[in-house]
Amino acid sequence: MVAFSEADCAHMARALQLATRGQYSAHPNPMVGCVIVKEGRSVGEGWHERAGEPHAEINALAAAGDNAKGATAYVTLEPCAHHGKTRPCVEALIASGIGKVVVAMADPFDQVAGRGIDALHAAGIAVDTGLMAASAESLNEGFICRVTHGRPFVRLKVAASIDGAIAMKSGESQWITAPEAREDVQRLRARSGAVMTGIGTVFADDPSLNVRTSGLNTGGLQPLRVVLDSRLRMPVTARMLALPGATLVCCSGDHDISPLQDAGAEVLSCVAKGRTVDVGAVLNELARRDINDVLVEAGPAVSGFMLQEEFVDELVIYQAPHIMGSETSRMFRTSSWSALADRKPLEIRDVRRIGSDTRITARVQY
Amino acid sequence: MVAFSEADCAHMARALQLATRGQYSAHPNPMVGCVIVKEGRSVGEGWHERAGEPHAEINALAAAGDNAKGATAYVTLEPCAHHGKTRPCVEALIASGIGKVVVAMADPFDQVAGRGIDALHAAGIAVDTGLMAASAESLNEGFICRVTHGRPFVRLKVAASIDGAIAMKSGESQWITAPEAREDVQRLRARSGAVMTGIGTVFADDPSLNVRTSGLNTGGLQPLRVVLDSRLRMPVTARMLALPGATLVCCSGDHDISPLQDAGAEVLSCVAKGRTVDVGAVLNELARRDINDVLVEAGPAVSGFMLQEEFVDELVIYQAPHIMGSETSRMFRTSSWSALADRKPLEIRDVRRIGSDTRITARVQY
Repeated sequence: MVAFSEADCAHMARALQLATRGQYSAHPNPMVGCVIVKEGRSVGEGWHERAGEPHAEINALAAAGDNAKGATAYVTLEPCAHHGKTRPCVEALIASGIGKVVVAMADPFDQVAGRGIDALHAAGIAVDTGLMAASAESLNEGFICRVTHGRPFVRLKVAASIDGAIAMKSGESQWITAPEAREDVQRLRARSGAVMTGIGTVFADDPSLNVRTSGLNTGGLQPLRVVLDSRLRMPVTARMLALPGATLVCCSGDHDISPLQDAGAEVLSCVAKGRTVDVGAVLNELARRDINDVLVEAGPAVSGFMLQEEFVDELVIYQAPHIMGSETSRMFRTSSWSALADRKPLEIRDVRRIGSDTRITARVQY
Repeated sequence: MVAFSEADCAHMARALQLATRGQYSAHPNPMVGCVIVKEGRSVGEGWHERAGEPHAEINALAAAGDNAKGATAYVTLEPCAHHGKTRPCVEALIASGIGKVVVAMADPFDQVAGRGIDALHAAGIAVDTGLMAASAESLNEGFICRVTHGRPFVRLKVAASIDGAIAMKSGESQWITAPEAREDVQRLRARSGAVMTGIGTVFADDPSLNVRTSGLNTGGLQPLRVVLDSRLRMPVTARMLALPGATLVCCSGDHDISPLQDAGAEVLSCVAKGRTVDVGAVLNELARRDINDVLVEAGPAVSGFMLQEEFVDELVIYQAPHIMGSETSRMFRTSSWSALADRKPLEIRDVRRIGSDTRITARVQY
C-alpha cells in the first residue's frame, strides 16, 4: 500500500473536481480529470468533455507544455493504452517526459484494464494507484456498472408528498413538487444516457423527458427516451417524438411499426416476459448501446415492477411538504409484497433541501 | 421596547433551559425556570417540577438566600399573584428584597395575566418583559393553547415507511420503526396530558399507550388514555385498562357502561357528530380537565379524520428507511380530499435522525 501525502490528496481532489465538469457531456465515456504538478504547484489541468475529443490527460499536458517534464500527473482513472477515437494517453504521457503518474483507480474497461499502467511502468515511469479510489469509483458508477456487468446503472426518480402520494386518483399531479425540484430533475436527466418510462405515463402525462435547461453543459446530448410498451400502443402524436433526441419504443409481439417509425421513433421488438417486455433484456441492449446510466421516470406500475424485479440501484425521492391523503396513487405498485418482511431497506446516501422539497437519495438493499 | 444585554440573554437562556427540566412532570402547570443574578453572577436557580410543589421563583429564592437582596430575577413566565396551591410568587419576590425582575412573557392565564407584573411594580420593583418571549411561548405552547383557546394543543404521531405505509394490508405493523424511534415516542407521551386513539387501534394492536421508560422524570404522571369509541365496543380486557393511569372511553348514545367502569375505565357520554363522537367537544372537555397537550396515536381513520377536521396542530412523522409498497395501509384516510388543491401544506419545523429513522416535526397549514 502506497502512503500518499496530504498534497497528493489535494491534487487528486482537484482532479476529481475537474472530472465532474464532464458529468453532462462526457458519457458514454467516463468522467476523468487530470492535474499536472511540478515542484508542488499545478502547472496544467484538464478534463474530458466529450467522446471523440481529447482525454483529460491530453488537455492537461497541453496546458502544462514543457513543464510536464519530470512532473507528476494526477489522473482520476487509469490512462488509456488503446487506440480508440483518440490516440492513447500513455503515449502522450511518455512523450511529455512526465516523471510520475498517480492514478485513483484502474480502468475497468477490458481494453484498458491495467495495460495503461503497465505501459507507463515499461517506459520507466513510476505509477502509484488507489488514491481516493472510492470517490473515483462513485464518480463513474454508471460507466463501471456497464463495463463490468453489461447493464446500465438504474436510478429511479419519484416525486411524492410526505405521505407517499404521487397523484390524486383523478390523475391530477401537476405539480407535486416545486420548480426547484423539477429543475433538479433536469440535472438527473442530463447525466443519464437514457430516460425510461412506461406507456401508461405517456398516456397520462405525454411527457417530454428531455433536457430543457440551457445552463447545463450537455454539449447537445439528449438522453435516449425509452418507452416500455409491450403492445405498441404509443401514439404517433406523442410529444417526445417531435423533440430533439431519439426515442426507442420497446414492444413485444407482432405490430405494424411503420407509423411510429415514420413519426421518428425506433421500435425495438423484445422478448416478452409475462405481460411485459423483458426489461432485463432491454437494459442489456441499452448497455450494448453504450448507455451508462438509465433514469426511470414512470408511474407506479413500471416503478413498482422495476423494484420488485430488483432492477433499481438508486432511488431519488423528491418529497414535497404536503399531506395528500388517501384518495391518491401510491409510489410503487408491488403486488407480490404481502408481508412486512417483503419490504426493501434503503441505505440513505444523501438528504437535502431542494427549494421547499426534500431530496432523498438512497440505495435499495435487496 | 427594552434593550436587553447579552448577559440578560444568557441568563434568560439558562432559565429556559432549567424550565425544560419540568417537561415531563410539571403539566398541567406550565414549565417555568428562574435564575437570580447578583453582580453578574448566578446566585440561585430554580424550576417548577410538579403541580402543588414550589414554583421556579420560590426554589431559586431559596437557593439564593440573602443574596436575593438587590439582585435581578430572570423568570421565563410572569410570576403568579394569586393564591393557588402555593403562595403567590410575587409576595416571595417582594419579601426577598429583589431589585429587579426580567420576565420572558406575561402569563396568559386569566388569574395571573399582568397582575403579577403590576404587583411587582406597585412594590417599587423594576420589571422588564419580553426577553426571549418566542422561546418562552414555544416552551409552553400546550398550556397557552389551553388557557387562551379552551382546547389542548394536538400533536399527531405516525410511524411510516418512506413511501407512506403504516402497516401491511394484513395489519402487520410491528415494527415499522427501530427501537430508538419507539423510545422517542415515550418522550412524546410523557410530555402529553392525554394520549388519544380510536377503537380500531384498540382492536388491531391492543396498545398500552403508557409511559414505560424509567429514565424520564415524570414524577409518576401517566397521560390520560382517551379512546374514541362511539358505539362503546371497548373490550373490558383491553390491555390499557389494567395499567397505571386512567382511561377515558368516549362514546355516544345509550350503552351499558357498568362493565367498562368495573374494568377501571371512565366512560364519557358525548354528543354524536355524524358517525363519530364530537371530537371538538371531547377536546374541550380535556381542556376543562386541565390537559395541555394531546398526543394522537391512532390508525388512518381517526388520524385522517383529525386532519380533515383541522384538529391537528403538529404532525410528528417517524419515517423508516424502507419501501413497503402498495399492499399496505396509508397514513391518513381523507375521503373528502379529491383534488390536488385539497392537500395540506406542512411547515417543517424540525428534521432529525432518530436511530435509523427520520423524525419530521411539522405544523399543518389549513
